Amino acid sequence: MVTLNADIGEGYGRFNIGMDAELLKLINSCNIACGMHAGDPTVMHNALKAAIRNNVSIGAHPGFNDLWGFGRRAIIMDSNDVHHMVAYQIAALTGMARAVGARVSHVKPHGALYTMAHVREDYATAVALAVRDIDDRLLLVTGHGSLVADVATALGLRVAYEMCADRRYAENGQLISRQSPEGIIADPTEAARQVISFLQNKGIVTASGRVIPANIHTICIHGDHPDCIAFATEIRNALTGAGIRMKSLPSHFH
Amino acid sequence: MVTLNADIGEGYGRFNIGMDAELLKLINSCNIACGMHAGDPTVMHNALKAAIRNNVSIGAHPGFNDLWGFGRRAIIMDSNDVHHMVAYQIAALTGMARAVGARVSHVKPHGALYTMAHVREDYATAVALAVRDIDDRLLLVTGHGSLVADVATALGLRVAYEMCADRRYAENGQLISRQSPEGIIADPTEAARQVISFLQNKGIVTASGRVIPANIHTICIHGDHPDCIAFATEIRNALTGAGIRMKSLPSHFH
Amino acid sequence: MVTLNADIGEGYGRFNIGMDAELLKLINSCNIACGMHAGDPTVMHNALKAAIRNNVSIGAHPGFNDLWGFGRRAIIMDSNDVHHMVAYQIAALTGMARAVGARVSHVKPHGALYTMAHVREDYATAVALAVRDIDDRLLLVTGHGSLVADVATALGLRVAYEMCADRRYAENGQLISRQSPEGIIADPTEAARQVISFLQNKGIVTASGRVIPANIHTICIHGDHPDCIAFATEIRNALTGAGIRMKSLPSHFH
Amino acid sequence: MVTLNADIGEGYGRFNIGMDAELLKLINSCNIACGMHAGDPTVMHNALKAAIRNNVSIGAHPGFNDLWGFGRRAIIMDSNDVHHMVAYQIAALTGMARAVGARVSHVKPHGALYTMAHVREDYATAVALAVRDIDDRLLLVTGHGSLVADVATALGLRVAYEMCADRRYAENGQLISRQSPEGIIADPTEAARQVISFLQNKGIVTASGRVIPANIHTICIHGDHPDCIAFATEIRNALTGAGIRMKSLPSHFH
Repeated sequence: MVTLNADIGEGYGRFNIGMDAELLKLINSCNIACGMHAGDPTVMHNALKAAIRNNVSIGAHPGFNDLWGFGRRAIIMDSNDVHHMVAYQIAALTGMARAVGARVSHVKPHGALYTMAHVREDYATAVALAVRDIDDRLLLVTGHGSLVADVATALGLRVAYEMCADRRYAENGQLISRQSPEGIIADPTEAARQVISFLQNKGIVTASGRVIPANIHTICIHGDHPDCIAFATEIRNALTGAGIRMKSLPSHFH
Repeated sequence: MVTLNADIGEGYGRFNIGMDAELLKLINSCNIACGMHAGDPTVMHNALKAAIRNNVSIGAHPGFNDLWGFGRRAIIMDSNDVHHMVAYQIAALTGMARAVGARVSHVKPHGALYTMAHVREDYATAVALAVRDIDDRLLLVTGHGSLVADVATALGLRVAYEMCADRRYAENGQLISRQSPEGIIADPTEAARQVISFLQNKGIVTASGRVIPANIHTICIHGDHPDCIAFATEIRNALTGAGIRMKSLPSHFH
Repeated sequence: MVTLNADIGEGYGRFNIGMDAELLKLINSCNIACGMHAGDPTVMHNALKAAIRNNVSIGAHPGFNDLWGFGRRAIIMDSNDVHHMVAYQIAALTGMARAVGARVSHVKPHGALYTMAHVREDYATAVALAVRDIDDRLLLVTGHGSLVADVATALGLRVAYEMCADRRYAENGQLISRQSPEGIIADPTEAARQVISFLQNKGIVTASGRVIPANIHTICIHGDHPDCIAFATEIRNALTGAGIRMKSLPSHFH
Repeated sequence: MVTLNADIGEGYGRFNIGMDAELLKLINSCNIACGMHAGDPTVMHNALKAAIRNNVSIGAHPGFNDLWGFGRRAIIMDSNDVHHMVAYQIAALTGMARAVGARVSHVKPHGALYTMAHVREDYATAVALAVRDIDDRLLLVTGHGSLVADVATALGLRVAYEMCADRRYAENGQLISRQSPEGIIADPTEAARQVISFLQNKGIVTASGRVIPANIHTICIHGDHPDCIAFATEIRNALTGAGIRMKSLPSHFH
């Protein structure tokens, strides 16, 4: 069993990004931007309603307070500010979800916050504390080898691990940077093959063929990728072909 | 019984406004800015903790998304956007309050949003719906003659009415504009006298001596007024002298 | 002789709007957003370079400080703040243009600021003063019947008048609101016909056939309209067919 | 001859910071915030007028686009964005200065941008290019050992070097971090003594007594320091006592 997740609700006013309507038909869980790197309140509300209509489980997708950089710029700030910035965003989406009869079931940090919480202990702690503050039943979604997973686990939170469909992994099991050409998988078929390989090998399979054991709950589809629909479709077909069921994130923890 | 209320948490990063620490010792209920006209997440968190320490009941103080104008500029926007903008802010503060073991018990719109919800039906409806969306037990604080009071009441919400300590009222019972010289009361003693007069007459007493019957639950102290501490102190003394007890907002509705 | 103008550079970071590359091939003058309602500094720089490459004359397109509302929301603010807000934006673009060897030759206010300067004397004055402050050789682009034209003229500025290609005009010569169904022309061919009619009649031709004499220097193509390329193309073809030359805005004032 | 410089115009709307009116009487050159980390357009205009009234030379003080962090947070962004972000701010202030008959004569980056341009070649290049883009006669103010000084010099710009009055210097001539207790000088008298020592020794005098030869054009007074007036006053008195004249920044380069 595996979950396809993607970011949605990343517009802002008249600015649009992504193909939410199409993506929501193909994924099982979504990450909704919470107003700081993208996602104004109306966009958030509409994304919540669209997730409900498509029977997709809902996650908060908090990011840095940085519209210009779309949350992709590392910002070195007091970790106490990170803590409350993340809590604020999760709280906002959680309350708005309840208003439409939905429930936020996971949190996945966005962009540079995701990356920094992966490797910086202060940010990892800030993010995990924010999740616990707002609702300790929330799942925290992150990649393997992430510090935020360690901190969250130590705090008693449940962690859902993801792999990126369109990225390659280094020998240490970590993502190869987007800057380097081998970091990116451009071909949806290759991406789908990697997904099946990781799931069947129950771990991250590196270029040398080494398998790093890893529990993979979910596969990230980058919704702002121009070919995201092709990626999602190929991966769905490959999963079906391999007899692997797709379910929403909370299904893994029942 | 009456409640002294004031806005707190209206700083933003290194920008400070108001004298929260002193004010919190003198009031019974506070209105905490929610990040859009003022109040970053850390400021909000600190304001929540300060309210708890001072045993002051907590309200959300949503405003327009307008740091430059401090929420004091009328913005003509889609009422659907107003609805979600207010819901977002209440949800954010409500969740952050729960995280520190506190409860938000009322909502008081800020600045131009307060004024526009007073007189525009679309904004009144947007604000009242937002309150109901997030938590229909929340009290809505507004002035007499306000459209938002009518809409909120029709939606089954409870309304707490306030008077402004430092403002004069016209013959129709509405606030005289700040622009006109008689709109403002500069002398704390006169403000205190007006408060006692309104409470003892159970209504708004106009310049001509006319009494417009009005249930007054709470008195607003403008925390950004340079003399706010003097106003609050004078009013407290006058209330004590008149044998009128001070309690938090929820006490009126038990 | 007439000028086709359109707004460009209205993206912000990863958020894109409009089809600048295609539009720039079809127009004679462009209005570049200046960082407040849209247009981050890099977007501005790229828009300037694109305008130069396409030999299109450059205007500043200042708007309200309102990314969420894309400058389309009326904001009631101190007119002194409007004055400096507009001066700031014109100054920023003017300096950046000089840095790439270009010159800003006109100013056209954006969205709600355009509309408010049309009808409010305080905003009209603020905008005209801002233009004069920064460079009194700048042309001010506005519609017929606009207060800002009167104030600008009184200040000694030159005014270029525009008509909107995709909008209908009321009997008083003013735009019919976008809210009303007859306000919008959806068909590029009809839009092109109206353009030719206005230019050949040297005035605004209303539904009843009345001609209100008006000097029309320029035709506005709405670049965020999904069919903007079709509109621009139809209008260009019609102008060519009618033997009307297209030139940039400053050409009218030589 | 030496110049006292301080940041002014760092308010934003109703948010105030600093004691501009008092400081302007004590300094020779000021650095005016340009709208991104602080300083709305009206604040900028008022700061320009105040600088003129006090006969203080004017500098642009560009910072990161970060009101919440007041430009004190390091932001890792594309250096091309840094380049245009800085050019935008300098252009805005330069144009607004010209509108009131003043001239911007220097640029001093703010906060984290100052620090990052000191040590990162990409940011140093971005800042220096932005200065050259907008006006290559502008002086660039920075500290000794700064990369931005090297790049600026290579580009043909003139550099004015500053020392910080309230900070101590390490044996390598660089500032000791604010985080470490010995990094900060709390006593105005000690600060004034250090200023005189550096100027008389024509260099940075470290704790061990070593003198690192350095041309010091200007002394930075931190205007957001609660004791800034005491610091400026003590330093002025000490300079007068030592027979060192105070002049504005451009005076050094005539």
